[in-house]
Amino acid sequence: DFLAALDEVHPAFGVNDEELQQCVHNEIIKFSSNIERILSDGQLYIDQVRKSSRTPLVSVLLHGPPGCGKTALAATMAMSSEFPFIKLISPESMVGYSESAKMNAINKVFSDSYKSPLSVIVVDNLERLLDWVPIGPRFSNSVLQTLLVLLKKRPPKDRRLLIFATTNERSVLEQMNMSDCFNSEIYVPNIVELSCVDFVLKELTLFNDDERNRALSSLQQDGFNLNIGIKKLLMIIEMSRQDVDKVDKFVSTIMGL
Amino acid sequence: DFLAALDEVHPAFGVNDEELQQCVHNEIIKFSSNIERILSDGQLYIDQVRKSSRTPLVSVLLHGPPGCGKTALAATMAMSSEFPFIKLISPESMVGYSESAKMNAINKVFSDSYKSPLSVIVVDNLERLLDWVPIGPRFSNSVLQTLLVLLKKRPPKDRRLLIFATTNERSVLEQMNMSDCFNSEIYVPNIVELSCVDFVLKELTLFNDDERNRALSSLQQDGFNLNIGIKKLLMIIEMSRQDVDKVDKFVSTIMGL
Amino acid sequence: DFLAALDEVHPAFGVNDEELQQCVHNEIIKFSSNIERILSDGQLYIDQVRKSSRTPLVSVLLHGPPGCGKTALAATMAMSSEFPFIKLISPESMVGYSESAKMNAINKVFSDSYKSPLSVIVVDNLERLLDWVPIGPRFSNSVLQTLLVLLKKRPPKDRRLLIFATTNERSVLEQMNMSDCFNSEIYVPNIVELSCVDFVLKELTLFNDDERNRALSSLQQDGFNLNIGIKKLLMIIEMSRQDVDKVDKFVSTIMGL
Amino acid sequence: DFLAALDEVHPAFGVNDEELQQCVHNEIIKFSSNIERILSDGQLYIDQVRKSSRTPLVSVLLHGPPGCGKTALAATMAMSSEFPFIKLISPESMVGYSESAKMNAINKVFSDSYKSPLSVIVVDNLERLLDWVPIGPRFSNSVLQTLLVLLKKRPPKDRRLLIFATTNERSVLEQMNMSDCFNSEIYVPNIVELSCVDFVLKELTLFNDDERNRALSSLQQDGFNLNIGIKKLLMIIEMSRQDVDKVDKFVSTIMGL
Amino acid sequence: DFLAALDEVHPAFGVNDEELQQCVHNEIIKFSSNIERILSDGQLYIDQVRKSSRTPLVSVLLHGPPGCGKTALAATMAMSSEFPFIKLISPESMVGYSESAKMNAINKVFSDSYKSPLSVIVVDNLERLLDWVPIGPRFSNSVLQTLLVLLKKRPPKDRRLLIFATTNERSVLEQMNMSDCFNSEIYVPNIVELSCVDFVLKELTLFNDDERNRALSSLQQDGFNLNIGIKKLLMIIEMSRQDVDKVDKFVSTIMGL
Amino acid sequence: DFLAALDEVHPAFGVNDEELQQCVHNEIIKFSSNIERILSDGQLYIDQVRKSSRTPLVSVLLHGPPGCGKTALAATMAMSSEFPFIKLISPESMVGYSESAKMNAINKVFSDSYKSPLSVIVVDNLERLLDWVPIGPRFSNSVLQTLLVLLKKRPPKDRRLLIFATTNERSVLEQMNMSDCFNSEIYVPNIVELSCVDFVLKELTLFNDDERNRALSSLQQDGFNLNIGIKKLLMIIEMSRQDVDKVDKFVSTIMGL
Ligand SMILES: Nc1ncnc2c1ncn2[C@@H]1O[C@H](COP(=O)(O)OP(=O)(O)OP(=O)(O)O)[C@@H](O)[C@H]1O
Ligand SMILES: Nc1ncnc2c1ncn2[C@@H]1O[C@H](COP(=O)(O)OP(=O)(O)OP(=O)(O)O)[C@@H](O)[C@H]1O
Ligand SMILES: Nc1ncnc2c1ncn2[C@@H]1O[C@H](COP(=O)(O)OP(=O)(O)OP(=O)(O)O)[C@@H](O)[C@H]1O
Ligand SMILES: Nc1ncnc2c1ncn2[C@@H]1O[C@H](COP(=O)(O)OP(=O)(O)OP(=O)(O)O)[C@@H](O)[C@H]1O
Ligand SMILES: Nc1ncnc2c1ncn2[C@@H]1O[C@H](COP(=O)(O)OP(=O)(O)OP(=O)(O)O)[C@@H](O)[C@H]1O
Ligand SMILES: Nc1ncnc2c1ncn2[C@@H]1O[C@H](COP(=O)(O)OP(=O)(O)OP(=O)(O)O)[C@@H](O)[C@H]1O
Ligand SMILES: [Mg+2]
Ligand SMILES: [Mg+2]
Ligand SMILES: [Mg+2]
Ligand SMILES: [Mg+2]
Ligand SMILES: [Mg+2]
Ligand SMILES: [Mg+2]
Repeated sequence: DFLAALDEVHPAFGVNDEELQQCVHNEIIKFSSNIERILSDGQLYIDQVRKSSRTPLVSVLLHGPPGCGKTALAATMAMSSEFPFIKLISPESMVGYSESAKMNAINKVFSDSYKSPLSVIVVDNLERLLDWVPIGPRFSNSVLQTLLVLLKKRPPKDRRLLIFATTNERSVLEQMNMSDCFNSEIYVPNIVELSCVDFVLKELTLFNDDERNRALSSLQQDGFNLNIGIKKLLMIIEMSRQDVDKVDKFVSTIMGL
Repeated sequence: DFLAALDEVHPAFGVNDEELQQCVHNEIIKFSSNIERILSDGQLYIDQVRKSSRTPLVSVLLHGPPGCGKTALAATMAMSSEFPFIKLISPESMVGYSESAKMNAINKVFSDSYKSPLSVIVVDNLERLLDWVPIGPRFSNSVLQTLLVLLKKRPPKDRRLLIFATTNERSVLEQMNMSDCFNSEIYVPNIVELSCVDFVLKELTLFNDDERNRALSSLQQDGFNLNIGIKKLLMIIEMSRQDVDKVDKFVSTIMGL
Repeated sequence: DFLAALDEVHPAFGVNDEELQQCVHNEIIKFSSNIERILSDGQLYIDQVRKSSRTPLVSVLLHGPPGCGKTALAATMAMSSEFPFIKLISPESMVGYSESAKMNAINKVFSDSYKSPLSVIVVDNLERLLDWVPIGPRFSNSVLQTLLVLLKKRPPKDRRLLIFATTNERSVLEQMNMSDCFNSEIYVPNIVELSCVDFVLKELTLFNDDERNRALSSLQQDGFNLNIGIKKLLMIIEMSRQDVDKVDKFVSTIMGL
Repeated sequence: DFLAALDEVHPAFGVNDEELQQCVHNEIIKFSSNIERILSDGQLYIDQVRKSSRTPLVSVLLHGPPGCGKTALAATMAMSSEFPFIKLISPESMVGYSESAKMNAINKVFSDSYKSPLSVIVVDNLERLLDWVPIGPRFSNSVLQTLLVLLKKRPPKDRRLLIFATTNERSVLEQMNMSDCFNSEIYVPNIVELSCVDFVLKELTLFNDDERNRALSSLQQDGFNLNIGIKKLLMIIEMSRQDVDKVDKFVSTIMGL
Repeated sequence: DFLAALDEVHPAFGVNDEELQQCVHNEIIKFSSNIERILSDGQLYIDQVRKSSRTPLVSVLLHGPPGCGKTALAATMAMSSEFPFIKLISPESMVGYSESAKMNAINKVFSDSYKSPLSVIVVDNLERLLDWVPIGPRFSNSVLQTLLVLLKKRPPKDRRLLIFATTNERSVLEQMNMSDCFNSEIYVPNIVELSCVDFVLKELTLFNDDERNRALSSLQQDGFNLNIGIKKLLMIIEMSRQDVDKVDKFVSTIMGL
Repeated sequence: DFLAALDEVHPAFGVNDEELQQCVHNEIIKFSSNIERILSDGQLYIDQVRKSSRTPLVSVLLHGPPGCGKTALAATMAMSSEFPFIKLISPESMVGYSESAKMNAINKVFSDSYKSPLSVIVVDNLERLLDWVPIGPRFSNSVLQTLLVLLKKRPPKDRRLLIFATTNERSVLEQMNMSDCFNSEIYVPNIVELSCVDFVLKELTLFNDDERNRALSSLQQDGFNLNIGIKKLLMIIEMSRQDVDKVDKFVSTIMGL
């Protein structure tokens, strides 16, 4: 039965840790309660798959604006499951692939996962896997159809699978009937509060306290609406670090977005 | 003649029971009279094919919203026929196939069926077999044309065939002139009555009596219209099972749909 | 000359009788004067081809709603010619063919026909041969062009050819300039009079006299417009035969169309 | 020089007389002065190519409604030139060809013509060569581009070429910029006068004098506008010949168009 | 350096004189001052390429209505340069080529030109090279992209290239962003003045003086706007030469355009 | 670690200097303060990549009107980095490549760059790499998807990459979601002030002082808006150099744009 199968798992299944850790280049900074809630929701899905035999397949979609941190969060949750099979499906490993090579690569990860009693797959950047472009619009229908089937395909008897997928283009996926494929959705928001910026700035030690306060009060202007992804925020911090006047560069770049 | 032929049937025709049973993962729960009516209608078609020589081909379309139970019902009816040839045509077994490989696979199942005096074929998830996507819209015309012909092609002399097909996209099939191909249609509805939810909850023992009553009375609110497929209902029950406050999780998830 | 050539015809030309008889599965029931008129018109075209040397090619299009009996009638007329070459071109024998395989198969039948002094070809279900689907719309232009040429191509000296083609989609063929290719058209109507239903019911002995009268008077209701193809009528008769209450099943199904 | 080259012409160039005569199946009936004018215009172009060294390429488009006699007239004029090279390019000899096979076949006829000092090419049924269909619209752009170049390509030094092309779809060719490729156009009209019908009827001896007069006076009705191609007229005459009441069949068919 | 390289030029580069002279079949008649201005502008570009090392690539577009003389003028200017490398890229030499064969052929001419210190390339009839057709519209994007790059690609060190291209479809090229690729444009007009016709008539000796005067005064009518390309004018002159009444044929044809 | 890796860099990485210098054919003339600002901004990005380990990938888009100097500036900045790996991706080296050959070539440059601790890649003329044409519009989606991934793909551990890309079609890239891929943008303007023209004229010594003043005062007219790219300005200067009246040619050409 299931527990027996779990014991037999070969280490050969492999957990591609390096690839997944690469997704979280700069660690997860817990700059808001959102981040904690997302991580604990992830834990619930991990538990469900581990425990309930009636739902051997659970799939979750992380969506939000570009650079909000979807990939880093999905990879982090996947690694925290410590399931014997953890793999990443990502457009970056398929550059230059033909449509059918992509289909095969995707299909192979799913087929491999069926050999492990407990598996988690991160499907990163769905719109890029689909070769989506809004002009036309164009996309790879054969990759789409492959995903539409695999995201809903029940693993064989005594096998269980958890899927975390990410996208910037939730509404596009809805038009493609793909949002029906997910059992749950997690929204990852941009940073809209200065307290979060403050938290991140402290963490990255760009400024001394005085500089940080000057920067934050400059941003506390009427009519300015903060709305920035964690990824862009990190980039601006590093750019500002090169400048003679770090505070000015930081503030003006953020306000110029 | 026909009965003689029936006797000669080789077990080699094969009935792919495992594949079909996989479609009914969680058994059929008879939560409403609809379910019984559907199953008995299915029996009528089985009888017609078995008995009338003037209609050697009968095809039936099961349609309804996502997750309403179409596939499980079609597979259940097919297995209940106990015909010597019972096969499933399903997108899940054709992931990554080219259009022509799909056409060949579909054609082969039909050709094989013509060797048995009595056959039943389940064609699951037509819109997915057709690689349908509403953007464009796009679909595989060659698979469509194959189906348009095979669904109407009379089996050879002294052979009889029953077809159960399923779809979420009946109106799309109509635009493709495919609904003309079916002799009958069966509508599978979502669950819209609390008594059905009650029935399912009892069956799956998520709650004790008290909890169940609390949950149901919470759902009996003004302005809330219950409308949920059996598949999603089962998923929500299993998710709630992980939560500390099962009743709350169950009620809030259903109302949040 | 022509008559000499006719004498030399090899039986090898083959008349694929089985295939053609398969098209008339349930015989022709002469339920109305329309049917007799159509068959005698067919005879006139057969005579013209046999006798007039100035028109070595005559092509006739049978059109009408789905299931009105086009294929059965075309096959019946073709067989009645008793020409040495009689062949069927039908989508059912080309399932899974590529476009070019279809073109070749169609072309071969025509080329073969040119070897017989007198030939008749039934081209069944033009819209299906063309892979027509209204979404798009899409169709095989190469099969279309092949047919546009072959339907008008004069056979070589001392050879004569009669073509019966069928379609449900006459207006589509018109948009494709295909209706220009036919010298004549025959419209096959649905059944709209109860006397025809009466005739068919008698022929198939579903009911005793009393039942038949009850059924027909139920159908004689105000506001109900009978409009049904012979093919569907036969199917409903056989379905009703399985039911406990045959009259009720028959009447309610017809009125529910 | 030119005359010397003309002397050397090998009979091998071939004039495919049989193919061309097949185009004029029923001879040219001179039922109106239009026909004579068209034939004498054709003679002028033949003379120009034979005599003027400044215009080694002359191309003429015959256009008019379906069945008006374009192909028969073009073939007749081509044969009357008695040039050493006379060839027909026609869709009927290219059934089932791929686009590139068509391009090659067309190109070959032109290349071959360049070897003869004096050549005439009949390009029959341009819209069919182009795989034209108004739905879409679709057509073979590679065949189109091949023709756009070849119809304007000057033959090499001391070679001269006359081209007669035919089409039912002059306005389509105009949209494709193809009408710019022709130096002249000849319009072939339908028959619109009863005197022409009279002439043809006499020629084909369908009726005796009395019958013919009865037929013609029946057609001389108010509100009836005669408009028929010679090809269809010939077909109706032969159909009527089979009927018991030839006059009635003839008149009713023509008026029913 | 540059002059040294020029000395080493092999005659093998080849100047395809025959092909280019074929483009000027009937010589250049200097019927107006426009023609002289165009030829002297061409000389300026030739000088610039020969002398200025800062602009090793100069590209010029000749555009105007069909038959206005673009090809003849471009070929004439190219030959007058007497550069060691002079080549023609023309659709007529690429009939039946696939898109990639065309790309290769075009690319080869440019690559070859880079071996000569001084080169001139005539790119004739751009819209035909691009397989342009306004229905759709359709064209070969791969040939377009090849030209967009090659027309702007600087030749290697110490190599210089002059390009003359021609088109009837300047506005189409503009929509394709191709007009940005040219450093200069030359407009070649149709003939709109009777004095030009007079000049041409004299040159070709169609009429005696009296006939010519009669013809010209017939054309000098109110409400008639002369607008004709030199190519068509030459064709009409030769057609008229065959007629018994040359003056009438000439005048009526021109006025009937 | 990083510095160690930097030491080990093989000269084999190659810096394709010749190719890059070819992009700056006529040197950078510092005709305005814009040019200096652009070059110093470039220096900041070079420093960031060299120093910050948190942002191992920095990508910058240079955009502006045709001929404004984008390519020359990007190449100049890239060479000034003196990174061990400096490569150009340019449509000019991919003429005639198939889509997949292009994808491979692009992918190879990026893969190679990952072997060097510090790399800079110039991606020149994005719209041309994408085979963009506004009619349709059409473009190579597979090249686009390749770039969308590679422009955001983090180099492996201890490798850093700076990307300079150029385009005339920033708004097109925006529609393709490509502008999200860049961390920064640099706008390169056309020349709109006479002082810049003056600076360039002096540099290139087309005129003596008197001529230059005459030319400039002619351009200082009411209602004339100067707007010209440096590339076109250089071309006009060289054209004028051939003319007898250089001042007039220069002024009239600029005002005729
Ligand atoms: N709380 C956090 N959540 C997510 N990422 C964080 C957080 N704190 C720091 N990071 C860092 O921010 C970056 C987020 O980038 P990531 O690629 O995950 O964003 P994304 O939303 O997937 O972007 P894209 O839309 O480009 O795919 C990573 O480098 C990650 O290490
Ligand atoms: N009465 C019932 N009818 C159908 N399915 C039932 C019933 N009771 C329980 N089930 C279970 O509910 C699930 C129904 O899922 P099924 O895949 O058949 O739905 P579906 O309509 O085919 O979904 P989809 O639209 O995704 O194809 C199955 O696991 C089945 O075992
Ligand atoms: N008078 C009749 N005319 C035609 N068919 C008849 C007649 N009487 C009985 N039949 C039977 O009715 C059926 C008619 O079906 P048929 O396939 O010919 O219809 P169809 O119009 O070609 O249908 P479809 O539109 O599906 O191609 C056949 O089984 C035939 O034997
Ligand atoms: N005066 C005539 N002109 C042309 N054809 C004639 C004439 N008299 C008799 N015919 C006969 O009429 C028929 C004309 O048919 P033809 O194929 O040439 O017409 P078409 O316009 O080319 O038809 P389509 O539009 O189908 O190509 C031929 O059989 C020809 O022998
Ligand atoms: N002044 C002239 N300019 C150009 N062509 C002339 C002139 N005088 C005579 N000709 C002759 O006129 C003809 C012009 O035809 P040409 O093919 O060059 O025109 P075109 O504009 O290129 O036509 P198209 O639009 O069909 O490509 C040639 O035969 C040429 O010899
Ligand atoms: N300050 C400058 N900035 C850029 N280019 C300059 C400058 N001064 C002189 N140049 C010269 O001007 C030319 C600019 O051409 P370049 O190809 O870089 O323009 P571009 O904007 O890339 O053009 P395109 O839009 O055609 O790609 C080069 O020859 C360069 O040497
Ligand atoms: Mg991501
Ligand atoms: Mg299903
Ligand atoms: Mg039929
Ligand atoms: Mg014709
Ligand atoms: Mg030309
Ligand atoms: Mg550039």
